[in-house]
Amino acid sequence: MEKTVFFNGKLIPLSQAKVSVLDRGFVFADGLYEVIRCYRKKPFALDGHLQRFKRSAEGIYMELPYGLDRWREICYELCEETDLGQFSLYLQVTRGPAPRDHRIPEQYEPTVFAYADPVSPEMEYRWENLSKAMTLKDGRWDRCHIKSVALLPNILARDEARRKGADEALWLGPGQVVYEGTASNAFMIEEGVLYTHPLCNKILGGITREVILKVAAELGLEVRQEGKTIQDFLAADEVFVTGTKREIMPLVEIDGQAVSDGKMGEWTRKIHEGMMEYIARDCGLDSCY
Amino acid sequence: MEKTVFFNGKLIPLSQAKVSVLDRGFVFADGLYEVIRCYRKKPFALDGHLQRFKRSAEGIYMELPYGLDRWREICYELCEETDLGQFSLYLQVTRGPAPRDHRIPEQYEPTVFAYADPVSPEMEYRWENLSKAMTLKDGRWDRCHIKSVALLPNILARDEARRKGADEALWLGPGQVVYEGTASNAFMIEEGVLYTHPLCNKILGGITREVILKVAAELGLEVRQEGKTIQDFLAADEVFVTGTKREIMPLVEIDGQAVSDGKMGEWTRKIHEGMMEYIARDCGLDSCY
Repeated sequence: MEKTVFFNGKLIPLSQAKVSVLDRGFVFADGLYEVIRCYRKKPFALDGHLQRFKRSAEGIYMELPYGLDRWREICYELCEETDLGQFSLYLQVTRGPAPRDHRIPEQYEPTVFAYADPVSPEMEYRWENLSKAMTLKDGRWDRCHIKSVALLPNILARDEARRKGADEALWLGPGQVVYEGTASNAFMIEEGVLYTHPLCNKILGGITREVILKVAAELGLEVRQEGKTIQDFLAADEVFVTGTKREIMPLVEIDGQAVSDGKMGEWTRKIHEGMMEYIARDCGLDSCY
Repeated sequence: MEKTVFFNGKLIPLSQAKVSVLDRGFVFADGLYEVIRCYRKKPFALDGHLQRFKRSAEGIYMELPYGLDRWREICYELCEETDLGQFSLYLQVTRGPAPRDHRIPEQYEPTVFAYADPVSPEMEYRWENLSKAMTLKDGRWDRCHIKSVALLPNILARDEARRKGADEALWLGPGQVVYEGTASNAFMIEEGVLYTHPLCNKILGGITREVILKVAAELGLEVRQEGKTIQDFLAADEVFVTGTKREIMPLVEIDGQAVSDGKMGEWTRKIHEGMMEYIARDCGLDSCY
């Protein structure tokens, strides 16, 4: 059966959801997105995602079409509509079709697109099988806190990782500080302290990142939002990356070097469990699966 | 009459040229473009543009759909088809529709889109009326030599310029070196020497830039591809930016400070004339207009 998507105010079949070749999202990457993980059809941290969506819009001088209440409704409609069990919601907004001109039009009709996307079986796979990362010099723009569709740098980095047999690439800033992954935030644990880079223009403020910080503190880990170098990461007890779709992905190898003993750490496992409990509680479920 | 565009192998009305919301150009900015100026229906420097298009494709690990001969044909078909007198050709290629996944698909059907876009009357206007620029710290990615559709940073900078009453924004690198404009290359003239930033990953190798360098040398200017600071630009005799659509746009004010005497320089006028002659010759025309 063909997927139903939300497109400019209506639920329609995916094959009918088409945008003009002059849509500013298509010719300029003048658009934003969000991904919201749902567990047993309940969207997790929906408000957090929608708040970030709104902040992203402000960051590109755009007013988000619809109020957050309407966005919430759209999300629930999609959850109801889909026959998928485990899925994410994907939301995208662009500044819509217009004669091609770099200048932002004074008036425009935004394009709105949202749909339920199945959770790839590979996500589970990775959790079981542990993952490898490579590093590369961060050469992205200076507004990575905005969740824009201008993702080509991330796409290219991810492809470089694939060619090197890695599952993710970590962006390194000056002094080889680890910023984040191409689609994840990065964490390390060293002697009972959890470290992750503080919020800034070079990392996306991950919703999962926030959850991890809370859960880790509840578990008795000390939490420090502080930049650590790739050398620190390699010498750490445990390293993982997090994201809405990936939840937690333990890294056991970076640039061909083993992290600690190359197995999943105990803290990582506990944080993942704690996170699943947190999510279930938040979604009003007995368990996430 | 509705515009005819080339879309995935056919000439069709613009309103029918629509891409899937899952086109990788729309969700990831995973695509490239070129703009070719035509004079009296003759494309100028077509080979140079197509060669750059091919290099851009290599830069994102993509094989350009069609050989360059076919691209040339498409361009000529569009020139024939249009009833516009002065126009640019716009070409865009993306990695096409695919289930949303950061990883580049092993197989994909590229989306190809091309059309003739009228030259905005404003371009002429600016040439007559001189222009103002603002500067801002370059926070774009580190592959600006690739002409990708991930243009959001440029869009935002251009909008900041507009809000400050400026027509263009100049990106400054470390030490306040002038890299280029948001959609142009930047030049200054000081005591008979023409300066522009050397080719590197922070500037797009402009086709117009190449022409200017040749024409200036023919006119007896010494040409140096060398980074100059914004202070150098402000103290220069003449400053201008160049681009396929803009040709030459003299800058008489930067960040509110007048450049030289605030009028168009003699060299700038001569270079523009020389460039128009060069283009006419190259296109086999008596004159460009």
